[in-house]
Parts: sequence; C-alpha cells; structure tokens
Amino acid sequence: MATLPPFMQQALALAQRATGLSEPNPRVGCVLVAADGRTVLGEGHTQPAGQAHAEVMALRDAAGRGHSVQGATAWVTLEPCAHQGRTGPCCVALAQAGVARVVASLTDPNPRVAGQGLAHLAAAGVAVETGPGAAEARELNLGFFSRMLRGTPWVRLKIAASLDGRTALPDGRSQWITGEAARADGHAWRARAGAILTGLGTVLDDDPRLDVRLAAVHRQPPLVVVDSRLETPPTARLFGPGREVWIYAAADDPARRAALEARGAHITVMPNPQGKVDLAALLRDLARREVNELHVEAGHKLNGSFVREGLADELLCYLAPKLLGQGREMAAFGPLPGLEAAPALDFQAVDRVGPDLRLVARFAGRDRF
Amino acid sequence: MATLPPFMQQALALAQRATGLSEPNPRVGCVLVAADGRTVLGEGHTQPAGQAHAEVMALRDAAGRGHSVQGATAWVTLEPCAHQGRTGPCCVALAQAGVARVVASLTDPNPRVAGQGLAHLAAAGVAVETGPGAAEARELNLGFFSRMLRGTPWVRLKIAASLDGRTALPDGRSQWITGEAARADGHAWRARAGAILTGLGTVLDDDPRLDVRLAAVHRQPPLVVVDSRLETPPTARLFGPGREVWIYAAADDPARRAALEARGAHITVMPNPQGKVDLAALLRDLARREVNELHVEAGHKLNGSFVREGLADELLCYLAPKLLGQGREMAAFGPLPGLEAAPALDFQAVDRVGPDLRLVARFAGRDRF
Repeated sequence: MATLPPFMQQALALAQRATGLSEPNPRVGCVLVAADGRTVLGEGHTQPAGQAHAEVMALRDAAGRGHSVQGATAWVTLEPCAHQGRTGPCCVALAQAGVARVVASLTDPNPRVAGQGLAHLAAAGVAVETGPGAAEARELNLGFFSRMLRGTPWVRLKIAASLDGRTALPDGRSQWITGEAARADGHAWRARAGAILTGLGTVLDDDPRLDVRLAAVHRQPPLVVVDSRLETPPTARLFGPGREVWIYAAADDPARRAALEARGAHITVMPNPQGKVDLAALLRDLARREVNELHVEAGHKLNGSFVREGLADELLCYLAPKLLGQGREMAAFGPLPGLEAAPALDFQAVDRVGPDLRLVARFAGRDRF
Repeated sequence: MATLPPFMQQALALAQRATGLSEPNPRVGCVLVAADGRTVLGEGHTQPAGQAHAEVMALRDAAGRGHSVQGATAWVTLEPCAHQGRTGPCCVALAQAGVARVVASLTDPNPRVAGQGLAHLAAAGVAVETGPGAAEARELNLGFFSRMLRGTPWVRLKIAASLDGRTALPDGRSQWITGEAARADGHAWRARAGAILTGLGTVLDDDPRLDVRLAAVHRQPPLVVVDSRLETPPTARLFGPGREVWIYAAADDPARRAALEARGAHITVMPNPQGKVDLAALLRDLARREVNELHVEAGHKLNGSFVREGLADELLCYLAPKLLGQGREMAAFGPLPGLEAAPALDFQAVDRVGPDLRLVARFAGRDRF
C-alpha cells in the first residue's frame, strides 16, 4: 500500500474497522478532503446493516465538525451505492452535499449498484475516478465479492493442529491442542464471519457453543450445522438464547425436526445423490441468506468433503509446537493418484500467535472470480 | 545482539562463516582491536580441522596488514585453546604476540581446555574477561556443546511435508512435496552437519544420494545408515566415490557385511534388547566420531523412534502449501495417552523459502545441558 494515495490508505484503514460490524454489507471507508487537497473534513466507515454507509458517516462527521463539503473530494473504497435499500443512496447524498470529486477503489459488484452510483455522480457533474486501492479493497471484501459474483460465500476452514497435522487424538480428544492466544484469535475470526459452520461429529464430540466469547462482537454469527439425519441433540450447548441455528439435513424426520425447531433451529433438507447434505447447494443457500464469509470449524470428515468437492477457499490453520503422532487428520480425503493431484495453496500470511503459528493459506486460484 | 559490544558482534559474524567449514571444531570468530579501542588490526575464523583456529587467523591477518598487536584486545567467541592438538595452543600465540586483553564469549566446554586457556593467559599477564555474546556463541555451537557436555550430537530431524503433515503418499511416493528453493535450503543444512543419517526404508524407497549438491561444501558429510539386518543394497546410489558410509546394524551377516565393506562401508553392530539398532548408543558412537550436528533425513518409522525415545533435539520442517489427505506421517509414534503427553517444542524460527515454509522447532528443554 506504499504507493497508494495517503487519503485512500486512510479510507482503507477505516474500511478495516467495519470488519465484523457491517455484515452483510461490504466493509467500506470514506474520507472527505477539502478543495485544498490537504484538510480532512470528515471520515466514516460502514455501520451495521440498516444503518449508515461510509459516505453518509463521513458527511455526518464533516457536518458535526462544522465543515462544508462544497468542492470536496470523497476518497471511498467502493463505489457509492445508487439504490434505496435500508438506507438512502450514497451517490445522491454526496452530490447533494456539493462534493466535487469521488475517487472510488472499485465499482460495486452488487448488481443493484454495478456502475450506477458512479453514473449518477457523473450525471450530477461530479468528477469520478476509480482504481486506487482496488486490490486492497477487494481483498478486504472477498466474501462480499464472492457472494455477489459467485453466488457463494468465501469458505474459510479453521483448523487447529499439532505441527504434524493432527487435529485430535485417535479417540477425538482435542481440547486443547493450541494455546489461549490462538483460541482468542480464532474467536476474532469467528466474529468477522457471516456464519459459522460445523458438522454433527463436532457437535457430538465436543458439544461446542461455537460463538464469539473471546473477542468483541456486536452480534453472534448464525451457526450452521451439517447434520444429515437431524441427530443434533436438542440439549446441545450450541442452542444459546437468541442464537440463530440453521441445520442442513439430507433427510427429514418429523419428530426430530419438531424437537429441534422447538429449540429455535431453522431446518433445510438438501440432499445430494449420495444421500448426504449437498454442500454446494448449501453454500448457494447461505449466499441467499447474505453470508459473505463462512467460517468452518469442523472435523476431518467434513473438512475432507469441502476439500474433495473443491468448495474450500482458504485455510486458517493454527499449528501448535507439539507432535501427536497418531491422531485425526486435518481433512480426510484421498488417497490421491499422485503428488501432482494435491490441492495447491498459497501461504497468504504467516504469524506467531502466542507459542503457536497461524497460517492463512489460500487454495490456488480460488480468489479469481 | 543489539546490546552486544560491536567487536563481539563482528567476531560472532566471523564465527558464523565457519559453519560447514570447521567441523568437528567449534565455529569461532576473533577480532583484534588496537589499544585505541577503535582500530581493527586483524580478524579470522576457524578453518577446517587441522588448520588454524580463529585467533591464529586473526594474528596472521594483522601481521599480513603490517600491524603489531602489542597491547591489543582480542574479541573471541570462545576461550582460546590451551592444548597442543592438530594446531598449537591459541592462548600461547596470543600472549606471545603481546595481546593485552582477551574478551571471550564462553569458556570452552572441551575438557582439554575448560578454563585452562584463560588461566594461561591470566598467568601470562593478559587481562581476561568472559560473557559478552555467550548465548549467541553457544547457540552457534550447540552441536559442539552437545558433544562435549552430553556426549551425543545435536540431533536435527529434517522433514518435508504437506501442510497437513504428510511426508509421502500412502505408497511412499514423496518426490517432490516441497519446491526447489526448499530442497536447496535443505542441502545447506546438510552441509553444516557432521553427518547425515537415514534409515533402510528411505534407502529402499528413494535410493537417495543424501549428499550436498545444491549448496557450497568443502567436504561431503559422512552418511549414517540405520539398517538392522544389513539390507542396504551394495548398488545403492549413496555409495559415491570417497563417500564415508557408516552402517549401524542390529545383527551381523558375514556375506552382506563383506559386500557392503567392499563398497567402502564401515559397519557397526549395536543392537538394543528389542533387536533393533540401539539409537542412544549409536548417538554416543557418533559423538566419539566427532559428529557435532547430526542431520536426520529418514522416514516416519525412524523419525518416530527418535521422537519416542526422546533422542530428537530439533525439527527442521519444510511445509509445502498443499494438502495430501491420506499419506505417511512425519513421525510414527503413539497413540498418546492424552494431549498432555505430546512432546512439546518451541518454534525457533519461521521463514518462507520459495512457496514453502521452513520451521525450526526445538524440543522443549533439549538445549539445556
């Protein structure tokens, strides 16, 4: 980002702050700069859905500081919206306020916007420009872009393992392989997700809550359970007060359905020809439910299904500095016919988290859409 | 090293250059500084065994530059030797040259030196001081210290695996999991070792040469083969011209022994009560053969034996950004009775090497001797 215009860097830093806040809306930042090209008049980022977008926040900020934005430039990380959604169109607000120029990192992939925001601004006599910060703004909103352009969320498999790739002892015991810092960090990644997904095996093995407790959050992400035969115990701890739980099954069962619905679960039956839950269809359904980033915390079998079916986009992998020898693997698939058939990834980020390592590895080519 | 005296930093940097050169002697650097405390008169590091030590190299360097070292300070990363070995005692050379002060990072753990060098210098009227750079000098010579103090080499297991901890497909195919940069880096680690060790399984699976080809080296490290029943094929590629091959067996076999000795192998029979090669005794034997650092490139079974028997000190682990699913593990041991029984390590270094990751992880507490 060293070569980016400084105000766009600032707008991107603001956009970052919308992470975990703006879902399902994109993470956008806006900086309003006076005609002198130096004075910041106002700044803002996307608020929770139904509240103001970044541009309106920046306009309000400028007004609060007693600044006129007549002749100002708006540096914004995504094309201002043109549609009357839960909020008024941002392009109208900017033009009406007298902004003279809008520099947007990207056009909005949302088909309800898709260039119309910029067209409206241009028609209103506002100079428009796109490009600066495009890669960074897209990366920050990969989930939103995935939902808009592929019709599926960005699928991130979270895995905690020993250095030798074991996620549990052979009998399933896995608490705890990684340290406290890694667990807290994992909650921060849960917090940014549009939904958290797990499988029945994990529910039965660990009875987890899979909510966000070790990080700040303004709402608990809905929990998705892949549970072919509706065997999730209605007493499971994942049913918290007000928690949205979406169970995807492969076959219905009226009694079990009733017991789970009584706990607040929303049940969808979506089998594939093999009699398992159709994961590809499930992902499309989650996009319809406006999930941008799907955070998967599952066991080796469900992880293996996501990898085998080519549905995983990224691994968020915590490696603890220990060896377990025998145990459960990260993802059960294979055997491969040859080494060249191995799913390839790229290491995006490598960081130490307490005594552990955090690796973000992206399946090669999956971010090209 | 930020708080170290600059001349000791310089001496440590020189010592580093002896890596892969000085074996079995320690990696030592020396800087001679004039009485003004500013002018460097000479510098040097340990040469190949039988040739000059760091102090003598520094004295020669000063002489070659036409400098007298009368009244100089010698900054040296290890106590000057006091014994007449393949070279004359360094403490005598320093005192005779008129050096007024010696600052040494560490006393020599070699029982033939062990403080005598410093005592000799003090008796000759040279001011002596120890301490600066002690941790760094010891770390650089962990293998030498291990051999001197534990009577065994520093044991480093080199492992190349996929991100999910697989070192090969189920049928043993492993060429290549990691990339070219990681393979070249692995050769640099082979080059610094006093010996390279493998097992019969790897010899039969891969028929490797296990020599140093992708890095500079002044001699090929001897190759150690753990081969209980002398089943190494005399036609194996590891028998290169002039290559030292030491085979450790659990049972003798005159015909096989003769065939292997004809290829230049040196054979030692060293069984444990279970009828396998006694690895602990093997390590003691390698220390007697003056191996400081042992570089192990073996398969999951032999790696597992080293881990299970508590004989591994460090992992040099290359992780490729790919998943193999089913396959061979890093080290075959277990199942553990519980997670708390997992061998614990510390990540010493984490670096990217081409598209792969290189992790140096040390078994907790193994460097305390």
